[in-house]
Amino acid sequence: MNAEEFRKHGHDLIDWVADYLENAEQYPVLSRSLPGEIRAQLPDHPPEDGESMDQILDDFRRIILPGVTHWNHPRFFAYFPANNSGSSILGELLSAGLGVNAMLWQTSPAATELEETVMSWLGELIGLPEGFHGVIQDTASTATLCALVCARERTTAHSINRMGPEGLAGAGSLRIYTSSEAHSSVLKGAKIAGFGAQNVVLVETDEKLAMDPEDLDRLIGMDLAGGLVPCCISATVGTTSSTAMDPLVPIGAIAKRHGLWLHVDAALAGSAAIVPEYRWIFDGIEAADSLVFNPHKWLLTNFDCSAYFVKDPVHLQRTMAINPEYLKTNQDHEVNNFRDWGIPLGRRFRALKLWFVLRNYGATKLREIIALHIGLAKMFAGWVDESSQWELLAPVPLNTVCFRWNPGGLDEAELEVRNKALLDRVNAEGTIYLTHTKLKGTFALRVAIGQTATRNKHVVEAWEKLNSCL
Amino acid sequence: MNAEEFRKHGHDLIDWVADYLENAEQYPVLSRSLPGEIRAQLPDHPPEDGESMDQILDDFRRIILPGVTHWNHPRFFAYFPANNSGSSILGELLSAGLGVNAMLWQTSPAATELEETVMSWLGELIGLPEGFHGVIQDTASTATLCALVCARERTTAHSINRMGPEGLAGAGSLRIYTSSEAHSSVLKGAKIAGFGAQNVVLVETDEKLAMDPEDLDRLIGMDLAGGLVPCCISATVGTTSSTAMDPLVPIGAIAKRHGLWLHVDAALAGSAAIVPEYRWIFDGIEAADSLVFNPHKWLLTNFDCSAYFVKDPVHLQRTMAINPEYLKTNQDHEVNNFRDWGIPLGRRFRALKLWFVLRNYGATKLREIIALHIGLAKMFAGWVDESSQWELLAPVPLNTVCFRWNPGGLDEAELEVRNKALLDRVNAEGTIYLTHTKLKGTFALRVAIGQTATRNKHVVEAWEKLNSCL
Repeated sequence: MNAEEFRKHGHDLIDWVADYLENAEQYPVLSRSLPGEIRAQLPDHPPEDGESMDQILDDFRRIILPGVTHWNHPRFFAYFPANNSGSSILGELLSAGLGVNAMLWQTSPAATELEETVMSWLGELIGLPEGFHGVIQDTASTATLCALVCARERTTAHSINRMGPEGLAGAGSLRIYTSSEAHSSVLKGAKIAGFGAQNVVLVETDEKLAMDPEDLDRLIGMDLAGGLVPCCISATVGTTSSTAMDPLVPIGAIAKRHGLWLHVDAALAGSAAIVPEYRWIFDGIEAADSLVFNPHKWLLTNFDCSAYFVKDPVHLQRTMAINPEYLKTNQDHEVNNFRDWGIPLGRRFRALKLWFVLRNYGATKLREIIALHIGLAKMFAGWVDESSQWELLAPVPLNTVCFRWNPGGLDEAELEVRNKALLDRVNAEGTIYLTHTKLKGTFALRVAIGQTATRNKHVVEAWEKLNSCL
Repeated sequence: MNAEEFRKHGHDLIDWVADYLENAEQYPVLSRSLPGEIRAQLPDHPPEDGESMDQILDDFRRIILPGVTHWNHPRFFAYFPANNSGSSILGELLSAGLGVNAMLWQTSPAATELEETVMSWLGELIGLPEGFHGVIQDTASTATLCALVCARERTTAHSINRMGPEGLAGAGSLRIYTSSEAHSSVLKGAKIAGFGAQNVVLVETDEKLAMDPEDLDRLIGMDLAGGLVPCCISATVGTTSSTAMDPLVPIGAIAKRHGLWLHVDAALAGSAAIVPEYRWIFDGIEAADSLVFNPHKWLLTNFDCSAYFVKDPVHLQRTMAINPEYLKTNQDHEVNNFRDWGIPLGRRFRALKLWFVLRNYGATKLREIIALHIGLAKMFAGWVDESSQWELLAPVPLNTVCFRWNPGGLDEAELEVRNKALLDRVNAEGTIYLTHTKLKGTFALRVAIGQTATRNKHVVEAWEKLNSCL
């Protein structure tokens, strides 16, 4: 493809994306494809000869697009959002054009230094105290794995990877504490890092689905009495099911008393802390050793862009650092080589899109959008609460409502069957897309409000649709 | 940013990228920024109010661009390439616009099924035998970590993460064998996965810098005799320093005899196997349990896009699978949920850009470009070999030449000092960018030829520049 062809198809594609973002709500939110339907329309073998971009883009519209679930849709209420914006898309385009690998400072000084700058900006926006250092990761799952590995290394004085011949095999049973509502990435990280699934200790939650610090303290005491080795607490600020808030102040005190690593997973909720009224979610954050939240969820920055902050980068660096001859540069002693701050060696220039978003919107506008979404969730929760047909199943501190249809007179088993059927019916209809969870065994529908274009009318439409599908 | 603004700035940016790609060689390849210089030009605090994209793009050109090292430059000969193409950039743009999270089949069926399709195409293009299953990862480092974790789990019958209370602490010393020329990601992965650095056993290399199978066999025998637990062999097809080729046929036989996991790291070289004359690099690949190579290095697909193939996905799935209630879908029993094929939960729609590249270029054209680059490297190696001033330091099977200035009469220490100084002088000058390595202790300059736009004249210019900087 020469420059003229790139220009032509690039302009066409920009126009297509502009139209798409403007008209996303005309598509069914959830793709109606059946398993295997897309693949069956694609050739089994790669083409020998090149094909025109016109042909490829035509196939995109004809074959691929019907298989897309529309995350940009203003009535996408499923999971947590992965929201987006024009400025972020342009940042991603420019990053792809530059094609920079930001593994070392030298391989693009601007990529490293802009990342340092925007991470410092982000820390300021969410009210993080001085002394944290930020780096962009792909996802919160990866950041949590990094935290667990650093906890493992600090607890064992870096002996697993420095001196001992036995690796983790010499370390005893290292224990991780997290609530029964924590994200599955804690268990996954523990498995990858070799802790063993059974060393993830699930702490009980209170009536608000937040970690119970007394139970945490009790479990640590039992482990110490039993000769096990407490290592890490992973607290959640905004759980995936219901955005419950683990109380960081008492948890931090327990972590400090026992010398445990405190990791805070605020994947969704962290963005809310840019709004002064919601800064309380990070009360006690000064006790954390690490924190992750995802601008790609709720800060208008397209996936992927996960913000990971650590208090003392030396643990990350000592665990992740590699320094083969072919990666040494003259500046190694005076710069950050972010390859040593995470798992992959190669790194995209993600700071660019975050810089575009933070500057193009500005803090004031970003706060307005977050506050709007929270307001819409509270409005929806109010409707549920007032209705005799529906029931709220958890508090609504932020943007996510857990609820179910419950007109009375049905047992739990039947309520689950009927709500599951309602979910499938609503999602198949295509106007809205929502997902489910279980809260202490109870099947719950979830509405998470956070797509960039979601406004009052879309939430009204969701409520009407749910009621009309009964 | 509304649709009209997106359209306007998008068109401007497409034109800028088109101009940039066409004129990349007018920039100094290696950025001339000094440490801290970019950051000092950026505000310490984020803006309260939004700023125009015109202002932001102006700052990009004025502040950021001078800090960019130009990976698209046709005289970028450093590290390994991370090459690029117009069709790939357009694929990335479209992927960012759609904003899809491809974690589950349901969250965009087309993302999963297009990934299955293009990975099957890639396997066919490199001549992979039937029975491998492909998934896109971010980097080879991450893929190698996945391989090591799967090896660990298979060797221990999945006991670390299934039944035992002790995690890896109960497993004994699990041993990983890789050559002394292997990539640093093997050691890094071993550290993350808790093997312990000392359990990475470095196998000797022969005069071609390829793993010596006899030494491998000897080391495994010693470990068995000492009560250690051999677990995994990581063979390299195309080492980072010199693209040396570990012999897969004898290594595969050893892996089979001892029941060890065989991982093949072909991060750069794998792309060469699309050329029939270079398919031999994968002779013996049928013995591998896993293989990684990076289309983002040498197959015109912009970073990141790493192709990971496994023979039996059950090990990956059993280790990585998480299935919390909030991620369950009605199709789980009949589809691939690629969240269970790697570390992150969230996943970008990377298959789109790979599909664009494979179709827009077609296999024939891609083969031509790879063969051209290999031919240019052999041409360069010929010049070195014929000159009394220069010396080849390793065979040149593919696109990378290791060499040094050696007019005779200088000892090793002085040769290192003089070649290091030459490297710094050449890179500061800005016409070309190359990096170095050490081969069995000998300091070597490296020229790796693989940028999309690199042609005969750029390699001629590199040779002239090196000679004029003496």
